[in-house]
Amino acid sequence: MDIRKKAVLYYCAIALAAGASLLAAEDNEDALLARAQQTFKPLPANAGTPQRPLTPERVALGRALFFETRVSTDGKGSCVGCHNPYFYGTDALPRSVGVGGKVIPRNAPTVFNTALQFVQHYGGNRADVEEQAVKALVSPLAYGNADYAAAEARLRALPGYRAMFEKAFPGETEPVTAENWGKAIGAFERTLITPAAFDRYLKGDKAALSAEAKQGLDKFMTYGCSGCHSGVTVGGQMYQKFGVTQDYWVLTGSKEIDLFKDRDKGRIRDTKNEADAFIFKVQQLRNVAMTPPYFHDGSVAELGDAVRIMAKLQLGRDLTDADVSDLIAFLQSLTGDVPAQFAAAPSLPAAAYQY
Amino acid sequence: MDIRKKAVLYYCAIALAAGASLLAAEDNEDALLARAQQTFKPLPANAGTPQRPLTPERVALGRALFFETRVSTDGKGSCVGCHNPYFYGTDALPRSVGVGGKVIPRNAPTVFNTALQFVQHYGGNRADVEEQAVKALVSPLAYGNADYAAAEARLRALPGYRAMFEKAFPGETEPVTAENWGKAIGAFERTLITPAAFDRYLKGDKAALSAEAKQGLDKFMTYGCSGCHSGVTVGGQMYQKFGVTQDYWVLTGSKEIDLFKDRDKGRIRDTKNEADAFIFKVQQLRNVAMTPPYFHDGSVAELGDAVRIMAKLQLGRDLTDADVSDLIAFLQSLTGDVPAQFAAAPSLPAAAYQY
Repeated sequence: MDIRKKAVLYYCAIALAAGASLLAAEDNEDALLARAQQTFKPLPANAGTPQRPLTPERVALGRALFFETRVSTDGKGSCVGCHNPYFYGTDALPRSVGVGGKVIPRNAPTVFNTALQFVQHYGGNRADVEEQAVKALVSPLAYGNADYAAAEARLRALPGYRAMFEKAFPGETEPVTAENWGKAIGAFERTLITPAAFDRYLKGDKAALSAEAKQGLDKFMTYGCSGCHSGVTVGGQMYQKFGVTQDYWVLTGSKEIDLFKDRDKGRIRDTKNEADAFIFKVQQLRNVAMTPPYFHDGSVAELGDAVRIMAKLQLGRDLTDADVSDLIAFLQSLTGDVPAQFAAAPSLPAAAYQY
Repeated sequence: MDIRKKAVLYYCAIALAAGASLLAAEDNEDALLARAQQTFKPLPANAGTPQRPLTPERVALGRALFFETRVSTDGKGSCVGCHNPYFYGTDALPRSVGVGGKVIPRNAPTVFNTALQFVQHYGGNRADVEEQAVKALVSPLAYGNADYAAAEARLRALPGYRAMFEKAFPGETEPVTAENWGKAIGAFERTLITPAAFDRYLKGDKAALSAEAKQGLDKFMTYGCSGCHSGVTVGGQMYQKFGVTQDYWVLTGSKEIDLFKDRDKGRIRDTKNEADAFIFKVQQLRNVAMTPPYFHDGSVAELGDAVRIMAKLQLGRDLTDADVSDLIAFLQSLTGDVPAQFAAAPSLPAAAYQY
């Protein structure tokens, strides 16, 4: 074979290899997407249901009530106080501050997409966003009202709301009630859905994720993160023990506190069942890159640290720097836009707060 | 003269009288507008000055900082905490709640158009909005920082802001300073201008005010309210004694307190000059209908009551119900729209608050 023929064959071989590699890469891309589609789901347009209808009147009322401070005993407490628009529906605090400056023992999770989780609160002691909103009215840490009658009296003292309640709950003799407060706020919260690059990807747009984010997605599924963090909210669909392979407090070195006295033992607080010790709802990861600090106690400020701790505690894996960087790139693809109806604050009915 | 001629003359006379009355009404309308134009001025587009330039970078930074909570010692204090979008730049509280739940001794005035007042605060102890914003950082009631260095350290711990400060204050070696915090927030506040029906009227659109509002405007000027409440912000351009014809506390029946010990004596608190006892800045009345409660102590919840008290205390006049209703109609014509850049909350740089 002369040198020219050899060269031709050589380049053909290279081209074939490159082509095969491209094909293989495309196969890999297809396989990754197919795996992702089995594990996750894109966000729906909203979280309304036949039992929880999102009528415009109910959503508008709920939007106003979400921002309303005058139903709390100090005139400052509100949903928005801990779930605010500037911090992606959180307050950027380790633990939230409630009525009268009282510290709430857990971190405020984002209100975005929360209605799509299987239960509410870290311990799952609220069935849905409606129950959460209603019971907050009489929580000594949240709105501080002595009972529902006291909360309703505060609501009824703001005359601007009556017509809004009547429109949102037509035909009811007395629509200004704590129950309807919950239904209205729940309706608003069910609109706070934040589609992101990852949703476009799940719908088939393979270019929606960067190469790094795709590597992160691959690792997220391969390492086992998606065993718990799955579904439409990438978490928020089951309970799990926090600290599977070792103790969270021991790992993070918080040895100065009494490990069994002072720390938050999760669901056992509500169920009183020993089997629920250290059981928490698996947190949703939508918008996680925008909502530090992390964990139920807000003890970790950086996303990379949270990712390392989770891999170690739950899966017994020590992540490399490249792992962390890839996983963060994937988690960033879960960041959507702040919903316009949330970023734009309503003007509330003018009336002075009454002590 | 036969009956037909009589009838013609009769109807001519009626027509003439009606025409004259219409002409007189139009004269009155013109005279009212001319008087108003001598006393008040329509709002400018913004309150920028050559010394206080409103560059887009400075306004954008100031907008973010206005909503920022992580520069306060409890992670909750912010400009927006007392000047919020849902209550027309106030908090609807008689007296505001500052850092750590501390009660601020005076009512929060609206931030809208405030940059156009001749001084800031009820006692005028802040020259402009920039000085107000800077000094709030080290107020034990507002942001709670021990000194400016502490406040600057908190600001510098939020890395997302550095690039914004560099763009807003180009060429400065260390732009992340308390002074630039004030300049940026001031720039944002100088954009919070709320033109209203009254401005359209002042510019010549006589149909912009209802007949009742015009009667209210007439009475506002005739009774002497506009002696103090004048200019572009309908107040906010001079000091005046609160309680000219009689004592405010005596009138409102608050006799249980020690009149000279417990009550707020105004500007004397800052100047220590006896001549300043009970001297306050005349409040601006822009958006007054949307910002109850009223007065420096927020002691009056209803606008009608505030109007009656002012007429009695300052002018010695007992208003009729019709007077109050007309004056309220005029005051309602001072209500503008919540500025879009204020209603729409910014997303702030993600980072956990650090204790």
